[in-house]
Amino acid sequence: MEKRIYNFSAGPAILPEEVLLEAQKELFALPGVGMSILEISHRSKTFEAILAEAKSGIKSLLNVPDNYEILFLQGGASLQFSMVPLNLMPPKNKADYISTGSWSKKAIKEAKRVGTVNIAATTEEGEGDKKYFKRIPKQSELKLDPDAAYVHFTSNNTIYGTQWQSEPEVGNVPLICDASSDILHKPIDVSKYGLIYAGAQKNIGPSGVVLVIIRKDLLERSQDSLHTMLNYKTQAENNSMYNTPNTFGIYIIKIVAKHLASLGGLSKMYEINKAKAKILYDAIDSSNGFYKGHAEKESRSLMNVTFNLTTADLEKKLIDEATKAGFNGLKGHRSVGGLRASIYNAFPTKGVEDLANFMKDFQKKNG
Amino acid sequence: MEKRIYNFSAGPAILPEEVLLEAQKELFALPGVGMSILEISHRSKTFEAILAEAKSGIKSLLNVPDNYEILFLQGGASLQFSMVPLNLMPPKNKADYISTGSWSKKAIKEAKRVGTVNIAATTEEGEGDKKYFKRIPKQSELKLDPDAAYVHFTSNNTIYGTQWQSEPEVGNVPLICDASSDILHKPIDVSKYGLIYAGAQKNIGPSGVVLVIIRKDLLERSQDSLHTMLNYKTQAENNSMYNTPNTFGIYIIKIVAKHLASLGGLSKMYEINKAKAKILYDAIDSSNGFYKGHAEKESRSLMNVTFNLTTADLEKKLIDEATKAGFNGLKGHRSVGGLRASIYNAFPTKGVEDLANFMKDFQKKNG
Repeated sequence: MEKRIYNFSAGPAILPEEVLLEAQKELFALPGVGMSILEISHRSKTFEAILAEAKSGIKSLLNVPDNYEILFLQGGASLQFSMVPLNLMPPKNKADYISTGSWSKKAIKEAKRVGTVNIAATTEEGEGDKKYFKRIPKQSELKLDPDAAYVHFTSNNTIYGTQWQSEPEVGNVPLICDASSDILHKPIDVSKYGLIYAGAQKNIGPSGVVLVIIRKDLLERSQDSLHTMLNYKTQAENNSMYNTPNTFGIYIIKIVAKHLASLGGLSKMYEINKAKAKILYDAIDSSNGFYKGHAEKESRSLMNVTFNLTTADLEKKLIDEATKAGFNGLKGHRSVGGLRASIYNAFPTKGVEDLANFMKDFQKKNG
Repeated sequence: MEKRIYNFSAGPAILPEEVLLEAQKELFALPGVGMSILEISHRSKTFEAILAEAKSGIKSLLNVPDNYEILFLQGGASLQFSMVPLNLMPPKNKADYISTGSWSKKAIKEAKRVGTVNIAATTEEGEGDKKYFKRIPKQSELKLDPDAAYVHFTSNNTIYGTQWQSEPEVGNVPLICDASSDILHKPIDVSKYGLIYAGAQKNIGPSGVVLVIIRKDLLERSQDSLHTMLNYKTQAENNSMYNTPNTFGIYIIKIVAKHLASLGGLSKMYEINKAKAKILYDAIDSSNGFYKGHAEKESRSLMNVTFNLTTADLEKKLIDEATKAGFNGLKGHRSVGGLRASIYNAFPTKGVEDLANFMKDFQKKNG
């Protein structure tokens, strides 16, 4: 069997080995079907069952209420940046956006093409090319419009390593969440949301599928004038099969959901994720300033641990040595620099422990 | 090894066994990389090389001139139905569409949301619920507007089993082609086209990727006001990676392109495809009317062979017996009825011969 390494990539990201092995076993031909998942018609009974299992798997893990639709669309979160305002902003044509990072800003950019965007809060700091985020706003900072079509936020910010510890309170205005980088990492109360979307390639499956969970009454906002592929109502009426969906991606989601359930579901994942992140944050906090966390402590992400060293040279040295030792993908995003360890659901605790030890050794030699 | 059957599905459709076996072998971890193709960052050198190979593979097979961009996008041909007019119709806001089937009509529906659609020709016949197509229009039937922003046609019509034998002549107006169901089945002169798009799931790879080949000067038509994900210029400037593309789909395309080249390229595929289709059309034409081809002879498709029997009961009996004998996916589309044998590039000649023999046996017993 081909040797595997520790993959700290921010996304596409590590998948459970059990999922990869099951997909590998079946890739030439699905058992009893005689065709590969890559070859079967999306209208076949075999695929219909796979889609139904993927949906029920997500529904069960997140305890999605019956008044929500679960969709598997294409175009990633980036197309959702447009679909959300195109479908949900009319007729009010104004919405609240909370800006906590680069992905929030991209969502805002597309929403402005549709209507008026009220920045309910932004935690951006710095000037010019040196702008950055390092925290989530407090509830008291939010300037919400009670008449907004919706409030949009980004639950986890991969680049800055910040994460909402709980949802913003928005009253009766529908809450819309880009949960691409932390969906399925803990139980959430879906009934608090109007719509949740998440690119699959962090915690759910491969790239090329985006999960959309939408409260059914919001489907009525989609106007007939929308381009068909961009219309949530049409996609829901066609059970994500108005056209051929990413059949392989949905198949992998089915396996991932089953795997997470077998591990004990999202409460168990939350325990594991908290423990994994603590190992790295403890290594940072106990380093006497050799390592410095980028995010403010109360905004820290369980999914992306971002930190710097005292000089860019030391950062480069650590990344180079870590890569040679089999820790891949640790280089921070260019807008933050330093290091980023992305430790999604599938990332093994052993890998986090090994990295923490590696960091301690590196500090001894270079501190 | 799991037993495989004959897969006549119209799409997603059969892939070469060599491609499936290579993908299967590498699914747990790419050789020397230690991570699965499902897990690696799209910004990694490994994926950049895969994307470059997929592009150069397509470029080489189709002999794509240097003044064209090759893109791998999401949303299938159905999203192209919108992206083509959104990007290419302004500022003239009028375009010619040639209607030869259900997919042409869907493209027309979205184009009408953007500007004026001139139906340059339609070969639709029948009334009400019984409307159908059975032929490609002659050049003399086309009512082209020399001032149109572009002319759009569908090269192969999966549902009706008709296919353009050569491109319509459109003068200096850019020619746009939905080639989803026959791309790569024969060499074409790409320089005749302004843009070619093709959902991958017939001849190129799995569902969830759409290939777009666009003449570079046409990129200048894309306006900044377009939603970012729908903007060809932005997608081209970002080498199909404005956001995370369908990395696995592109990986499979890379393998398919290499496989087709190893078989001798598209001239060889064309020879094989003509020979394969001839076996089935001969079986139909020599049946003394027991089998009746749906498409007019001069419009027949090499990819989808559509035919009827004299009664719906006989059709059902044939489909049932064929399915039991390991011929899967032969049921015709509900709008045509009868049978449809989709025999894309990857469909083996042996399977076509076996089906022709099965049809002859069936006729002996039931004729």
